[in-house]
Amino acid sequence: MRGALADLKSLLAETAVARDRAGGTAKAERDAIRRSGLLTLAIPAAYGGQGEGWPAILGAVRDLAQVDSSLAHIFAFHHLMVASILLYGNPTQRAGLLTATARRGLFWGNALNPLDRRTHLAAAGELAEDGEEPQSWILNGTKSFCSGASDSDLLLVSADGPDGVLRVMVLPTDRSGIAVLDDWDAIGQRQTDSGTVTFTDVAVSAADILGPPGPFGDVASSLRPCIAQSILASLYLGIAEGALAAARGFTLTEGRPWRASGVASAAEDPYLLHHFGEVQLAVAAADALGGLALDRLQRAWERGRSLGSQERGETSLAVATFKVAAARAGLDAAGRLFDITGARGAAGRYGFDRFWRNIRTHSLHDPLDYKLKELGVHALTGALPEPGFYS
Amino acid sequence: MRGALADLKSLLAETAVARDRAGGTAKAERDAIRRSGLLTLAIPAAYGGQGEGWPAILGAVRDLAQVDSSLAHIFAFHHLMVASILLYGNPTQRAGLLTATARRGLFWGNALNPLDRRTHLAAAGELAEDGEEPQSWILNGTKSFCSGASDSDLLLVSADGPDGVLRVMVLPTDRSGIAVLDDWDAIGQRQTDSGTVTFTDVAVSAADILGPPGPFGDVASSLRPCIAQSILASLYLGIAEGALAAARGFTLTEGRPWRASGVASAAEDPYLLHHFGEVQLAVAAADALGGLALDRLQRAWERGRSLGSQERGETSLAVATFKVAAARAGLDAAGRLFDITGARGAAGRYGFDRFWRNIRTHSLHDPLDYKLKELGVHALTGALPEPGFYS
Amino acid sequence: MRGALADLKSLLAETAVARDRAGGTAKAERDAIRRSGLLTLAIPAAYGGQGEGWPAILGAVRDLAQVDSSLAHIFAFHHLMVASILLYGNPTQRAGLLTATARRGLFWGNALNPLDRRTHLAAAGELAEDGEEPQSWILNGTKSFCSGASDSDLLLVSADGPDGVLRVMVLPTDRSGIAVLDDWDAIGQRQTDSGTVTFTDVAVSAADILGPPGPFGDVASSLRPCIAQSILASLYLGIAEGALAAARGFTLTEGRPWRASGVASAAEDPYLLHHFGEVQLAVAAADALGGLALDRLQRAWERGRSLGSQERGETSLAVATFKVAAARAGLDAAGRLFDITGARGAAGRYGFDRFWRNIRTHSLHDPLDYKLKELGVHALTGALPEPGFYS
Amino acid sequence: MRGALADLKSLLAETAVARDRAGGTAKAERDAIRRSGLLTLAIPAAYGGQGEGWPAILGAVRDLAQVDSSLAHIFAFHHLMVASILLYGNPTQRAGLLTATARRGLFWGNALNPLDRRTHLAAAGELAEDGEEPQSWILNGTKSFCSGASDSDLLLVSADGPDGVLRVMVLPTDRSGIAVLDDWDAIGQRQTDSGTVTFTDVAVSAADILGPPGPFGDVASSLRPCIAQSILASLYLGIAEGALAAARGFTLTEGRPWRASGVASAAEDPYLLHHFGEVQLAVAAADALGGLALDRLQRAWERGRSLGSQERGETSLAVATFKVAAARAGLDAAGRLFDITGARGAAGRYGFDRFWRNIRTHSLHDPLDYKLKELGVHALTGALPEPGFYS
Repeated sequence: MRGALADLKSLLAETAVARDRAGGTAKAERDAIRRSGLLTLAIPAAYGGQGEGWPAILGAVRDLAQVDSSLAHIFAFHHLMVASILLYGNPTQRAGLLTATARRGLFWGNALNPLDRRTHLAAAGELAEDGEEPQSWILNGTKSFCSGASDSDLLLVSADGPDGVLRVMVLPTDRSGIAVLDDWDAIGQRQTDSGTVTFTDVAVSAADILGPPGPFGDVASSLRPCIAQSILASLYLGIAEGALAAARGFTLTEGRPWRASGVASAAEDPYLLHHFGEVQLAVAAADALGGLALDRLQRAWERGRSLGSQERGETSLAVATFKVAAARAGLDAAGRLFDITGARGAAGRYGFDRFWRNIRTHSLHDPLDYKLKELGVHALTGALPEPGFYS
Repeated sequence: MRGALADLKSLLAETAVARDRAGGTAKAERDAIRRSGLLTLAIPAAYGGQGEGWPAILGAVRDLAQVDSSLAHIFAFHHLMVASILLYGNPTQRAGLLTATARRGLFWGNALNPLDRRTHLAAAGELAEDGEEPQSWILNGTKSFCSGASDSDLLLVSADGPDGVLRVMVLPTDRSGIAVLDDWDAIGQRQTDSGTVTFTDVAVSAADILGPPGPFGDVASSLRPCIAQSILASLYLGIAEGALAAARGFTLTEGRPWRASGVASAAEDPYLLHHFGEVQLAVAAADALGGLALDRLQRAWERGRSLGSQERGETSLAVATFKVAAARAGLDAAGRLFDITGARGAAGRYGFDRFWRNIRTHSLHDPLDYKLKELGVHALTGALPEPGFYS
Repeated sequence: MRGALADLKSLLAETAVARDRAGGTAKAERDAIRRSGLLTLAIPAAYGGQGEGWPAILGAVRDLAQVDSSLAHIFAFHHLMVASILLYGNPTQRAGLLTATARRGLFWGNALNPLDRRTHLAAAGELAEDGEEPQSWILNGTKSFCSGASDSDLLLVSADGPDGVLRVMVLPTDRSGIAVLDDWDAIGQRQTDSGTVTFTDVAVSAADILGPPGPFGDVASSLRPCIAQSILASLYLGIAEGALAAARGFTLTEGRPWRASGVASAAEDPYLLHHFGEVQLAVAAADALGGLALDRLQRAWERGRSLGSQERGETSLAVATFKVAAARAGLDAAGRLFDITGARGAAGRYGFDRFWRNIRTHSLHDPLDYKLKELGVHALTGALPEPGFYS
Repeated sequence: MRGALADLKSLLAETAVARDRAGGTAKAERDAIRRSGLLTLAIPAAYGGQGEGWPAILGAVRDLAQVDSSLAHIFAFHHLMVASILLYGNPTQRAGLLTATARRGLFWGNALNPLDRRTHLAAAGELAEDGEEPQSWILNGTKSFCSGASDSDLLLVSADGPDGVLRVMVLPTDRSGIAVLDDWDAIGQRQTDSGTVTFTDVAVSAADILGPPGPFGDVASSLRPCIAQSILASLYLGIAEGALAAARGFTLTEGRPWRASGVASAAEDPYLLHHFGEVQLAVAAADALGGLALDRLQRAWERGRSLGSQERGETSLAVATFKVAAARAGLDAAGRLFDITGARGAAGRYGFDRFWRNIRTHSLHDPLDYKLKELGVHALTGALPEPGFYS
């Protein structure tokens, strides 16, 4: 894993500034990810994968995010989709989908935005008697924020059934009626392809619908948001580290002391060192919290279906703590980068603003204020976050 | 002035997002500024101008910066060039240059970056005896950060003479040997044309060189950085207000309450109101400090050549205070804008990141840390900032 | 006023550290305030007072708060009581009470805590027919946070009537049944005597009850919280300035450079200068906002009974802005004082912690979070604070 | 250890508020510490101690600091003195001093303030030839900040020799010529007895002087400041947790919702929960960094005399990171405690200000700005802190 990861990181770094400007689908880089062999990291060995733990997988995500947080996001969400199969799927689904993913090098995309309720499943043909679930369905509607859907092989899709209950299903991206729009244009994370997917009379079979247990079918299934939030936090921390590395590189190679500083080199300026110290502290704190959170996540993951509510809640809390710290570290590092470089660092050729645009965009995934509130509730009452799509 | 300003602001607002993306010279908008009649605001009535005070002129700058801080910068720097003629020029130069500016609607650009020492004046022909200044000079070299030089009519240029002393001169932009490069590509302030100007064997006459008094020739001449820094601060405050207006507009028209908030509309979310309160406070403080600083600047300006060091120093300190507060207000507002809008506000079509890119770029003009140090020195010892190009 | 104020400030400064330790009623200093002649500042000339405006009165409050924010508070609240008579009282009450105050040098105390609803007015004897207000009442109950009640001559007291409506009355402190407890023991503002007053079968006549208009009887009467909040903000700002002065004095006379700083004197340490700069900035911002707020307050005050809601609301908003900025300046200055002095500044003999204990205590008067929310609501919707006892 | 610690904590908690007010030597509590058996925690089993690791010892320190950071400091410094013997002493000194400490329950005090250079060692009698060290010395001078010297059995003392080189020695507190002054009066940490010790013609033998290796005699000996700084950080974190516990307790039992909040209980106020969230985050980050730092310290400790410079430097850096985070957590928690309680929490009977006075005082031990600079230097250049008495 180490060598493949280093190669991939190096490849992404080369063109990251240019691709940030261009936006759109990074087809060549997606293919490089496919070739890297890293798409099977989260797949259990029993299904032909590498069976890595979450600390290692998210360490890779964070590493890539230092140079390209867009591709790191797509890469990470692929693993989230794999985890979703393991958490929501029944044994047949798990074995079938993940074995195929490992063997054929499939790349997953996301169409499971729980806030966007515009997708609906309707029964195809006559309904079975006795309230049984139909065997055939028709899917219609639209999903926004579908990261990694472009150029994907499989999609994880959510939709409301006729009973108003959310169902999560797996569909091949090329299934008839599915259209992945090339309409992602954000200020940051510009190559996550987080655009719109539309579904027009898409045929869905009962076997496509994950479960049991399905989402929230048991405590274990509710571990998914803990993984999703851990991914976000790992990306944030990687961005913070990337900004710090940029600040370091600029100062050591191109830094000039400000005239009023009275020092001989930028590296001796007390205020620059103060900014470096602040960023170092924020990164170190997020890193330490990340270590604790990911260890706890891994332990919860290893409980399998017997995961209990208390442990799940403690995991969620640890991840929330990591997330807020990482987001702040990223925002702080991305801003101070410029206090450190001074005016010359604003030149477009460095693309140093991408760190801020990326962390600013991505840290909006769900409001940090409400994560902090979860920490506050816990500090006051001891209550742990309730399972939900964001906690 | 009011009506012309409102029209110009409205015109700039229409295309600001698109032009920020495009960068380059905003030729149509520059021409609109020319047509607005506002280029004569700072020119004394005696020379055919409007003779407005700095509070009014910088109020206009701030107003424009709410929607387009790039064009507001170019607009403001034109007035700084006019002020430079009044501060550095001899009576003949003042009358000649400013009368021409008013009558012919000339637009000034800047090539006076004191940190870039690559321009040099050499005597043309034989040197006069007795150490007298030569009547003809040759200018060679390069200047960076020449805001507003593109499409300008006149340039204010600084260069070192053979004696190592800085001289400031006025040259028509189309004089032979002057090339304005179209090489400005920054992460923000993308239409300030702050690129490179090169000088190749440019003929300069003694009359082109401003003075006496010239730069630092008397206390009054050292009021120039107070004006320059007031311009920066006014731009920062305008950006802060622009970001606040964007946050307000989005929340009132497109805001959605976060699910966990338990409130019916985004406008009732306690954390959103907290962010609004913080920005409001920062803007109000910068505004109050700006009021004091610009009043003081105007009083110092009205002293004319009899301005004393103490008053000049107090003006510089007041402006420094305004500047730091305005820069922080801008950075804070530009960041919180996204905490307020949430994820949907990151859509490229809003261009909301331009506030941050603009303030982040522009607040690097000279380091805020050293401005704050000036405040600290004053608080501790009562000492006032020494005149320099940045104080 | 200048000379008397300077003398009083000097007298308070001498013993402020010792009296902060001791707590309790500062009888000697209260008498010095009486002798200073400054108790008539807010009383109109028509009633024998000095008829000063609020900027001057609150400037005196702020000045005293630099050295002793407890006595400055008592001093300020006396003027608030005078203002309350002017705002709530009928013409007879105004003339009678304020003429007596001016002539006899009376010192007012406060027993009008609107959050403490434990005082009640009952009709004495038989009720008049036709729902007329009784001429005689009996007051019973308890009030907390009665600043300046000890050693006072007159008290402003609030109580609920039998109809649940709040009434505000004036009672001589020595009236039978009134007991001022010596039970104020707080971590800061230790000599404000903000303890408990109990009322046992106290006889109250209809003439003792202020009005019409009484509280909230017209828009003008609702200017009282604007004055009260302006007092708080002025005290906060004075505390901030006092802490800054302490930091300055220590550094210049006893400061030692930290070994790793590499500088020859504490006054050159870049990080110390940074702390000074931050405090200077915060104080300057609060001062500028205070200037605007108090000017606005004075204009509103001068409207007299014709004050309109819009102007009252704008005044309230300006004061709220001042207050939050001043509270933060005070907290920041009181904390950084120690970063500046280093370990030796923690010696008890300096009493430097009193700034923090005073601002921390006093800034809790009503929550800053909700003041900030008022600013946020205004920024978002333009709405102005609704009149209430804290807005 | 658990039971004894819990008993001690409970005993200290009972009287902590009253003893903070009183200041002075906590004789009864010091004797309780002696009786607790916890003074032998750091003494190796070979010398009759419990041989606990630093994570456990400093966990105990932190635990006690939640309720009484003064006594926790004295307790911790005793262990630092024990560690100093192990790091500086020769084998005979180690065995002799620590065996005696364990067997006789001795309590150590500190007189090793490296910034105070007023103590001097002179040779007693004639000097030996050949530059040999004399066998008898005379110690004279004064030391400030001698924590825990009052009521101590043994003192660790530093003094300059005639060659200007610092020597560290162990002296019984009751040796003739040693006077421990009762002159500690600080705004916080009021029972650490960190006052003055004077030495008047005190006889010192060569055997009293620690070493070889002595201070900075090898890399291992320079681990002492890492332990000292870890103690500070653990105390800071304990104070933060104590303030958080106070905030929680008050809110749950006495909290009242602010009227404008619109919520039914203080525990639901969104701004209170925000404050709790911020404190929780800061404490969690410091805790996570503490876990990493103390593990690293323990590993370095276990290297014994073979500790290398790189590992020592990494330990110092980890401890510095922990320290800055813990100090900030403490200051933040101690301030927000009052935002959470509101005005009623300022009542003297709670003594809630002691958290702030304690952390503010103790966080000045050596400047946080220069700790942060160490982090900055490392982030920029990779350099590790140089060994010194504060790094």
